[in-house]
Amino acid sequence: MSGTTVTQRIDAVRNRKALVAAAEYVFAEVGPDAPLELVAKRAHVGRGTLYRHFRDRIDLAAAVYEEHLNELERYVAERAEAPEIALELMTRIAELQGQARGIQPLLLRAAAGRERLAVLNARTRELLAGPLATSKAAGVVSPEISIEDLLIAIDMVEGALGALSRDKTPETAKRAFSLLIPALTSGPGVPLAQFWSAHPAVGAAS
Amino acid sequence: MSGTTVTQRIDAVRNRKALVAAAEYVFAEVGPDAPLELVAKRAHVGRGTLYRHFRDRIDLAAAVYEEHLNELERYVAERAEAPEIALELMTRIAELQGQARGIQPLLLRAAAGRERLAVLNARTRELLAGPLATSKAAGVVSPEISIEDLLIAIDMVEGALGALSRDKTPETAKRAFSLLIPALTSGPGVPLAQFWSAHPAVGAAS
Repeated sequence: MSGTTVTQRIDAVRNRKALVAAAEYVFAEVGPDAPLELVAKRAHVGRGTLYRHFRDRIDLAAAVYEEHLNELERYVAERAEAPEIALELMTRIAELQGQARGIQPLLLRAAAGRERLAVLNARTRELLAGPLATSKAAGVVSPEISIEDLLIAIDMVEGALGALSRDKTPETAKRAFSLLIPALTSGPGVPLAQFWSAHPAVGAAS
Repeated sequence: MSGTTVTQRIDAVRNRKALVAAAEYVFAEVGPDAPLELVAKRAHVGRGTLYRHFRDRIDLAAAVYEEHLNELERYVAERAEAPEIALELMTRIAELQGQARGIQPLLLRAAAGRERLAVLNARTRELLAGPLATSKAAGVVSPEISIEDLLIAIDMVEGALGALSRDKTPETAKRAFSLLIPALTSGPGVPLAQFWSAHPAVGAAS
């Protein structure tokens, strides 16, 4: 940093911020395979600047996810004692998913490989742990609900957004989350045992 | 077909069947990007035979999905009057998803383009319509649940399977479906309005 001026550093911070915001927008609008050219354009920087800050699209997606985590962590810190905090948090997450579709699929694609993603996963679990304990103690969330369930629920909302066009994702994320609320508050149901695993898969027969 | 013998035709039917079963197995084990070589190998046919029957992996996935639809349609035809038929059907679908992960993501990738997929979509809606009406009339499924909700629920279960290894998908599909049962039977919840859309997305600020 010794050779850079204060102005250059301020520019770098501003550019990075603009790139993260642009990436969230472009991935949501165009999808996870959107040309990064569009991200640079929307952030009003050149391709070189983009690649100076981010190695690839997964790096960009991780940065967007980090922004979300920062915001959610601040939120939880403020409302840690609220009995409904777990539901508030899950609502907020579902809403972000509806707005920023494409981030989770990109991170999933990176698979288990990258250390940074392991850190994001650990932060996500950490984010959920306190609110879940608070809301369970308050009787707002069912004692049968675990952190694993909340992680599954987040993946489920993302799954509902699949191939939808961007204008439909907020409404669908909301509806998908609505379908999870009764299980979160009153506990999951039990699949009809006689129909579960009663039939072999097509492929299993071969 | 005039040049083919009966034996050749029987072989072709058998090969096709073996390829579909192999595709279901390989996509579930290795993922949607599994080499088609593995499918041919498992079906004990050459690559040429595979491509004579199926244009590409999406064609194969569509054939697996058709097999599932055939089986589910037969099931519904037999149990059409059962009050719980919608839940039975959704249970069976979730179970198939847990066994045959990878099929839906491949079909989604094909996007809206192909006519055959439009046919499969229409058949899926048709498959769900009767059972939903029956179970709603019987009071087993909530009057607030629509066909759209069932389609969203199916996508949600698939979403939960994302990057899991194959040995975990049946259990996770079951748990994901358990998280949907209360909403299906008693109606969806209502997201806390004050937290929904109270915050702008990161990207929206730019």
